[in-house]
Amino acid sequence: MENFVAYNPTKLHFGKGVVNELGDAAESIGKKALVVYGKGSVLKNGSYNDTIRQLKDRGISIVEFNGIKPNPVVTDVDEAASIGKNGKVDMVVAIGGGSVIDSAKIIAICIADNVNGWDVMTGKHTPAGSKPLIAVLTLAATGTEMNPVAVLQNHDTDQKIGFRHEVMFPVHSFLDPKYTQSVPANYTAYGIVDLVAHALEAWFGEGEANLSDRFVIAIIREAIEIGPLLMEDLENYDYRARIMWAATNALNDTTMHGRVSGDWGVHGLGHTLSYLYDTAHGATLSIFFPAWMKRLVEKNPDRITQLGKSLFGVDSPEKTIAGFEDFFKKVGSPVRAAEAGITREQKGEILDLMSKQKVRGIHVDLDEQDREAIVELAL
Amino acid sequence: MENFVAYNPTKLHFGKGVVNELGDAAESIGKKALVVYGKGSVLKNGSYNDTIRQLKDRGISIVEFNGIKPNPVVTDVDEAASIGKNGKVDMVVAIGGGSVIDSAKIIAICIADNVNGWDVMTGKHTPAGSKPLIAVLTLAATGTEMNPVAVLQNHDTDQKIGFRHEVMFPVHSFLDPKYTQSVPANYTAYGIVDLVAHALEAWFGEGEANLSDRFVIAIIREAIEIGPLLMEDLENYDYRARIMWAATNALNDTTMHGRVSGDWGVHGLGHTLSYLYDTAHGATLSIFFPAWMKRLVEKNPDRITQLGKSLFGVDSPEKTIAGFEDFFKKVGSPVRAAEAGITREQKGEILDLMSKQKVRGIHVDLDEQDREAIVELAL
Repeated sequence: MENFVAYNPTKLHFGKGVVNELGDAAESIGKKALVVYGKGSVLKNGSYNDTIRQLKDRGISIVEFNGIKPNPVVTDVDEAASIGKNGKVDMVVAIGGGSVIDSAKIIAICIADNVNGWDVMTGKHTPAGSKPLIAVLTLAATGTEMNPVAVLQNHDTDQKIGFRHEVMFPVHSFLDPKYTQSVPANYTAYGIVDLVAHALEAWFGEGEANLSDRFVIAIIREAIEIGPLLMEDLENYDYRARIMWAATNALNDTTMHGRVSGDWGVHGLGHTLSYLYDTAHGATLSIFFPAWMKRLVEKNPDRITQLGKSLFGVDSPEKTIAGFEDFFKKVGSPVRAAEAGITREQKGEILDLMSKQKVRGIHVDLDEQDREAIVELAL
Repeated sequence: MENFVAYNPTKLHFGKGVVNELGDAAESIGKKALVVYGKGSVLKNGSYNDTIRQLKDRGISIVEFNGIKPNPVVTDVDEAASIGKNGKVDMVVAIGGGSVIDSAKIIAICIADNVNGWDVMTGKHTPAGSKPLIAVLTLAATGTEMNPVAVLQNHDTDQKIGFRHEVMFPVHSFLDPKYTQSVPANYTAYGIVDLVAHALEAWFGEGEANLSDRFVIAIIREAIEIGPLLMEDLENYDYRARIMWAATNALNDTTMHGRVSGDWGVHGLGHTLSYLYDTAHGATLSIFFPAWMKRLVEKNPDRITQLGKSLFGVDSPEKTIAGFEDFFKKVGSPVRAAEAGITREQKGEILDLMSKQKVRGIHVDLDEQDREAIVELAL
């Protein structure tokens, strides 16, 4: 086991009606909020109205930025931060999924430190502080509600990158599974894939961490048991709740303690498809994870088989990979690029962007040969 | 899944040499510390010297209280708090195991709020604040290093009770497994039993919480795999590290999210033996858990069997209980009171104290008949 620091100060409120506690939380922070959200879904699922009512009932005044994109861009972050700075807000309230909350994390730093978003993302500016962030989660997927990570893209530099800093933990996160009951089948599936991918990226990380490994297995088992049931019964509160909590745990460091790092190679590969074709993040992961594992078979078959034994009761890397492909298909997420409308003609530009974005991994280096082989397997 | 709040702000530093980071942590808090510890073990294992050096190197002045007992008493807490108040300390630094850190949590409140310890423990005084607490853990067992709970006894009222409040999380905890390498076999075993008992108390708690159940299984499996290996090789750093981290996770709420509560009945039963005969806490748990489960067989056999299937591959409650007895014996912790020197003649006073302490449980009520039956089974 490697040395590590376990630290997660987010206060996460989980369950039916928990947004009723948001007013108290906001009031303890300040008097003016920048509310950030995406398009229409938060208006339809009730989360926006519930949140605004909480703020208004406490006399908290509001400025807004809406229109954060599903694959969020740094220009929106800068625009929202400018509204927050002009409004002299005391806090940022994010209502939505990973894209909105990730954006809000950077917005909160930009307001506090009076900097632009890309300087934060690239590490040019080290955050000195952050406006307190309250998150209301409406999509179970990324785990951003209980971690200090954000992923953004920049169309000027053709990059989609992640950034992590301790000031980025939300102070409060509110997770009411009822807001996720109206998420359509495809995005529900992508969320399930995303959480499984996060657990796998920990599993394939660097450093022996046995209890963290056991937690990985626990989380993936939960997804394998509940994911398909949820896909058949999208409005089931209990299934929604179980997937939502599994998604939080897949990326709140529960699976990481004692490791040096996770292997984020597959996320890097996936980001290129999201960047080029706006492919949903979860879909890029179910496309690339099987292909990546096939490439890994030559190098580290045992680690794959160990996973297959625990999850599927199988005894070879090939059967383990087939187990994951079956699972991804069962929830309805693509396992080949073609199913996401990406054809062989696009192979060149995908590889070019991977090269440009300097995608790197640990177990699989993701050098030119690796990338070529993986994209071929994924087509 | 029940509504819950997930919140744990302790920053936990884990691994070889992490106490080297204590000076930074203390310096960011203040200039004067009350250092609290027990008897001689922290002087022998190096933790005391390492901690004092860190404080002195930063010019932090020190007052001390030593002599916290293995089953800690509130009179020591009041005496230590008085030293802290007179010394106008900015923080409390606890070096030791659960008894020292639990005491320090209450001491830190008593100093901040200028109250006495038992008023805090009994809820007569609600904590308004606490001096920041830094913990240096030297015994893997109770999980106190990452939770807001303390257990103390009071010889005036014949009580041993627990108290939980959000202000009681240590601000920083330092866990270097090397300090536990000199813990003797019996206390090593009791620590392993304690962590397994904590996981079981979550398992048998109220409310369905599937992912938390999976985490329970993960933690107990880790203890079952590593516990016996550690008992054969007490100075093995890696085994010490794995048990230490498992113990933290067994009581830092990882296993509790989504439940209404744990079933702490067995802890309550065990406290009576510690109170009457100074029996080590872990020993009381390996004595009472099998007896308690035997009483539970009539009422809820399925929940026991579910555990046995996952942990021992057995299919009946009786075989599951036998599995736990075997495991406790294997690590060298008693499974009958007689092995701890407690005889049938003492049955009356044990039952009297249980009645007086109003021990209660969830799955087993622990009414008079239950207590009589369980004590009989445990003799």
